[in-house]
Amino acid sequence: MSNKIKVSIIGVTGYTGTELLRCLLQHPEIELKYLVSRQHEGTPLSELFPRLSHIEGLNITNTAHDTVANDSDVVFLCLPHKAAQEVAPSFLGKTKIIDFSADFRLSDKETYERYYNIEHHHPELLDGRFVYGLPEIYRDQIAKADAVANPGCFALLVQLLLLPFKDKMDGADVIAISGTSGGGRSARDPVDHPFCSQNIRSYLVNNHRHTPEILATSGLDEKQLNFAPTVGPFLRGIFANGFIKSDSSANLSVFNNHPFVRVVDKVELTNVVSTNFVDLNYTQGNNGEIIAQGALDNLLRGASGTAIQNMNIMFGLDETLGLQFNSPIYP
Amino acid sequence: MSNKIKVSIIGVTGYTGTELLRCLLQHPEIELKYLVSRQHEGTPLSELFPRLSHIEGLNITNTAHDTVANDSDVVFLCLPHKAAQEVAPSFLGKTKIIDFSADFRLSDKETYERYYNIEHHHPELLDGRFVYGLPEIYRDQIAKADAVANPGCFALLVQLLLLPFKDKMDGADVIAISGTSGGGRSARDPVDHPFCSQNIRSYLVNNHRHTPEILATSGLDEKQLNFAPTVGPFLRGIFANGFIKSDSSANLSVFNNHPFVRVVDKVELTNVVSTNFVDLNYTQGNNGEIIAQGALDNLLRGASGTAIQNMNIMFGLDETLGLQFNSPIYP
Amino acid sequence: MSNKIKVSIIGVTGYTGTELLRCLLQHPEIELKYLVSRQHEGTPLSELFPRLSHIEGLNITNTAHDTVANDSDVVFLCLPHKAAQEVAPSFLGKTKIIDFSADFRLSDKETYERYYNIEHHHPELLDGRFVYGLPEIYRDQIAKADAVANPGCFALLVQLLLLPFKDKMDGADVIAISGTSGGGRSARDPVDHPFCSQNIRSYLVNNHRHTPEILATSGLDEKQLNFAPTVGPFLRGIFANGFIKSDSSANLSVFNNHPFVRVVDKVELTNVVSTNFVDLNYTQGNNGEIIAQGALDNLLRGASGTAIQNMNIMFGLDETLGLQFNSPIYP
Amino acid sequence: MSNKIKVSIIGVTGYTGTELLRCLLQHPEIELKYLVSRQHEGTPLSELFPRLSHIEGLNITNTAHDTVANDSDVVFLCLPHKAAQEVAPSFLGKTKIIDFSADFRLSDKETYERYYNIEHHHPELLDGRFVYGLPEIYRDQIAKADAVANPGCFALLVQLLLLPFKDKMDGADVIAISGTSGGGRSARDPVDHPFCSQNIRSYLVNNHRHTPEILATSGLDEKQLNFAPTVGPFLRGIFANGFIKSDSSANLSVFNNHPFVRVVDKVELTNVVSTNFVDLNYTQGNNGEIIAQGALDNLLRGASGTAIQNMNIMFGLDETLGLQFNSPIYP
Repeated sequence: MSNKIKVSIIGVTGYTGTELLRCLLQHPEIELKYLVSRQHEGTPLSELFPRLSHIEGLNITNTAHDTVANDSDVVFLCLPHKAAQEVAPSFLGKTKIIDFSADFRLSDKETYERYYNIEHHHPELLDGRFVYGLPEIYRDQIAKADAVANPGCFALLVQLLLLPFKDKMDGADVIAISGTSGGGRSARDPVDHPFCSQNIRSYLVNNHRHTPEILATSGLDEKQLNFAPTVGPFLRGIFANGFIKSDSSANLSVFNNHPFVRVVDKVELTNVVSTNFVDLNYTQGNNGEIIAQGALDNLLRGASGTAIQNMNIMFGLDETLGLQFNSPIYP
Repeated sequence: MSNKIKVSIIGVTGYTGTELLRCLLQHPEIELKYLVSRQHEGTPLSELFPRLSHIEGLNITNTAHDTVANDSDVVFLCLPHKAAQEVAPSFLGKTKIIDFSADFRLSDKETYERYYNIEHHHPELLDGRFVYGLPEIYRDQIAKADAVANPGCFALLVQLLLLPFKDKMDGADVIAISGTSGGGRSARDPVDHPFCSQNIRSYLVNNHRHTPEILATSGLDEKQLNFAPTVGPFLRGIFANGFIKSDSSANLSVFNNHPFVRVVDKVELTNVVSTNFVDLNYTQGNNGEIIAQGALDNLLRGASGTAIQNMNIMFGLDETLGLQFNSPIYP
Repeated sequence: MSNKIKVSIIGVTGYTGTELLRCLLQHPEIELKYLVSRQHEGTPLSELFPRLSHIEGLNITNTAHDTVANDSDVVFLCLPHKAAQEVAPSFLGKTKIIDFSADFRLSDKETYERYYNIEHHHPELLDGRFVYGLPEIYRDQIAKADAVANPGCFALLVQLLLLPFKDKMDGADVIAISGTSGGGRSARDPVDHPFCSQNIRSYLVNNHRHTPEILATSGLDEKQLNFAPTVGPFLRGIFANGFIKSDSSANLSVFNNHPFVRVVDKVELTNVVSTNFVDLNYTQGNNGEIIAQGALDNLLRGASGTAIQNMNIMFGLDETLGLQFNSPIYP
Repeated sequence: MSNKIKVSIIGVTGYTGTELLRCLLQHPEIELKYLVSRQHEGTPLSELFPRLSHIEGLNITNTAHDTVANDSDVVFLCLPHKAAQEVAPSFLGKTKIIDFSADFRLSDKETYERYYNIEHHHPELLDGRFVYGLPEIYRDQIAKADAVANPGCFALLVQLLLLPFKDKMDGADVIAISGTSGGGRSARDPVDHPFCSQNIRSYLVNNHRHTPEILATSGLDEKQLNFAPTVGPFLRGIFANGFIKSDSSANLSVFNNHPFVRVVDKVELTNVVSTNFVDLNYTQGNNGEIIAQGALDNLLRGASGTAIQNMNIMFGLDETLGLQFNSPIYP
């Protein structure tokens, strides 16, 4: 009898669910139990994911949550916000949960409702039982957690970019440029190729939903941060440029023993895309500010890769297991 | 006998020379006299520019500078820096000159030599006889000039972005992202497709050669400006994002009567590429700073389009002549 | 009083309507009368087309068809098939019509209903009163026509590619690769950037709706043609490669006096995109077949540019008027 | 003492050498011995490949061939043609060789010299001691070989596309469209981004160097094949479309027990890029011909992945070892 970790995915057909499945197929210590999609129940995997048509024995089901909870050691919820909060209670306390949505990332109902513009139906769950899943800050808490709220992709990059200056900044101005896969398979904003393929545009400047996550870990208050989320003409990745107002120098020791952060001489998207690394660089600006640059793969380190880090930590495994694509695809 | 303006181009085969030729072919008041290229003398136009193979009567020659000067009302020098300063004296005083290089943009030898890392062989020409060719600031001087130094593409966008805050800023942090055509046909940095097509990277941060041009018109000193020139995965255009430290509001009247600046609600690359427009937007940031965004087409408004504006102004023509591609190509 | 041609567009907000508007804005002999869109009535032009925000005096209206017909010399119908056949009768006989849809391209109801899978509600209009708008074949008929059915983009390229072998072929195998703008703004097939930007795929092989147009002008019957329509990772343009089974040589004289066809040494997309040219090349294959290649801009020569050619011909103007973008944008 | 296979790479810095290194870093049964580059000796890996900057213990050396031969179980030669034939004799008979170049793919000097336009300096090595490294045809011979000539990327795809019709065709017309990485890091043809990113063009039609490889395994003679190699605006992958003249149906049993060939309903580039799969599809055309489509990743299955398949076979390992990236990166 296998003592591998039994893993299920709720909502496997979105970009992050797909990326998670791709990574888990290479993970040596897990066993895929259920791939759940209400919409695509029974659709052959080879039709939904033609690139996986050689894989046998995987089926899309609409298995009842109870069964999934009973038969799984961990369940990944790859659902949009709002949907996740309706589904999470079925699993809480019965199995471990790693939630990709925003529903359990914030600690107060008011902030959630202000940024997401909908009512939170389970404010009682915002009591700390979900640990914020950023391993570089909360690894110890994640290790003991039964429920983890996986960070937003923009948030995670900006959080790590600012981390060496936590509580030592007077302010930060950040622009972060994401590839078009950032919006997910059912993006609100248009990502059709003719519109995107030679375009750059910002959206929701100082009003993006990932903002409260950034504030929560940086020591900045709302009046100290400008954040310009931007979409660029490429598939994957986020490139961030920050101007940090601080008299201190970067405390890079915060990244000691964190295997997926690299402080490098030069940040380039192609050095991180298809890997789980975050690359970061800090230089002294002309006016006393710090020029900080960073990059990651939005679907991998910005979502599914971090989720697997979190799973590894929750089960006492090596944090890098299943994520050792040591070298990005290039070119 | 035609009384159209007789125009010659020295160095017609680079990106900006090509773009200039494309625009001049639609200009109603000019006559193309010589298309000069030492390297490609005699090559049929249809071989060099297959897209122009239907055009007859145009030849690439290596005509002597004296002849070009005698037979032309204006000469565009589309040469790299260093090459331009060797050639310019052959034309100065004999015909009007619009120079695309950096050789006559700066007013002192020391700054030039520091940023370009070569000796300037004609410092005596940095005496003001070349007017800096930014029509939104120097239109009156350009109208009287016999020699114009056309601005650098990054510089021009950042200069216009900062113009409403001229002499009213304590500082500015700017990142500007250029398409791959920005480097020119013989770029120093690699622009091969596999390297570029999914990449973003900054280079020469706070050390870019266009910096002194920005300082010259903004009222900022070197200690007040951070400038991160960046290359993105697209063909044409520059998108700039600036964080401006100023207590004043934007003085948008500086753009009155300047037909190629549009202050818009939203800046997107695709709204300006293939036009001569600069689009600009200013919003109040959280920390008292201004968030400023701007965009232009680097080969058109960032080079050849502005050069034609300058020509039009020098000859008393409507500034927009030959540049009325009113609507950009879309998608 | 102006004696310019009064032009109206029904359905101005799709890709081809937009491209048509862009071109007409540069046409010296026309006056824009109505820009009609039921869906976007009253929306400011600058909101719908931010890139046109500098243009004043243009409004989107939902003017009654009768008024449009009375006040216009020619009406362009930029509507999808099915919608066009409902609308066309309001204009027929009252003003000239150039129809972009497929509804009046074919001469029999059965072929239409088979390929488009809907009933044709006005089969009585398929009696020849719409001339097929391919100037290189039907220029004389277009000159006398009151109604023109503008060709499909794939069809037009393949028709011209095969024209030098009309009635002299035993068969042809053609693959044609279109940019993502080919599907229009409301494409059936997905064109979102993450799906398209590094992909190539064929669709509706030997079953594409443009097939009967190709058969109609080539002298081939259905059993002699293979046609693989394909979508590639670029914005604009179609590149076609055909293997033609013929013992004859190409009769290139069919292109004499047709200003927008160039027979060239080498076909490249970038030589035609943003122009109204079709570039064609023919070489002898190893097995007695002819290898034929061709390219055009799908939105321009493949749609709106040809429509303007047709208008020019219908009104006795120079066929190239308004289309003299002599040189494509490059790079 | 490790009994892993000791592997060295000569010419590690080109695209295929890099891709080989990337794959070998994930191979469970090998040990990297020497990464040789004459040009880049001593350059830190993190400078040459910043994306690998987290990897320690790897160095670029210029170790003498004798030492490499003595200390390695197998040597990959990732050199251009001509260079490979000068170097290969140093290793032949001393260690196993897998050669990426074209120098030992063909069986006669004349064909080589005609297509490559240079003299072959070691015609005595064209005696069969290099087995052609296409596992789907020559697996048994590869298993016993000491030297393998890895196929060309275009060749490999077209060979597999035609394999089900081997010796049963009267002819084939093939167009194959490659991404820009196909030309390698030092491509003869220009692949700069501005030139390529929206372009399609064919080159060396019926004269491409991979042609004799295709003829050698297909049963076609030169008069029966048309082959149009083409470059498209994407990074990785080759998409091929063939029209096969045959009265037989596809003998798909040739792919039985070959783990890296998938016969699929629909061929799309994105289903194979970043995997070692070849996807193939066959449908009946209108004129009795077969329409065949296929796709692969040019750097992986078209080069380094097949090389690793060959190594696995030569050493009696599971053919798929180190190549089980079961799911391509998507989007």
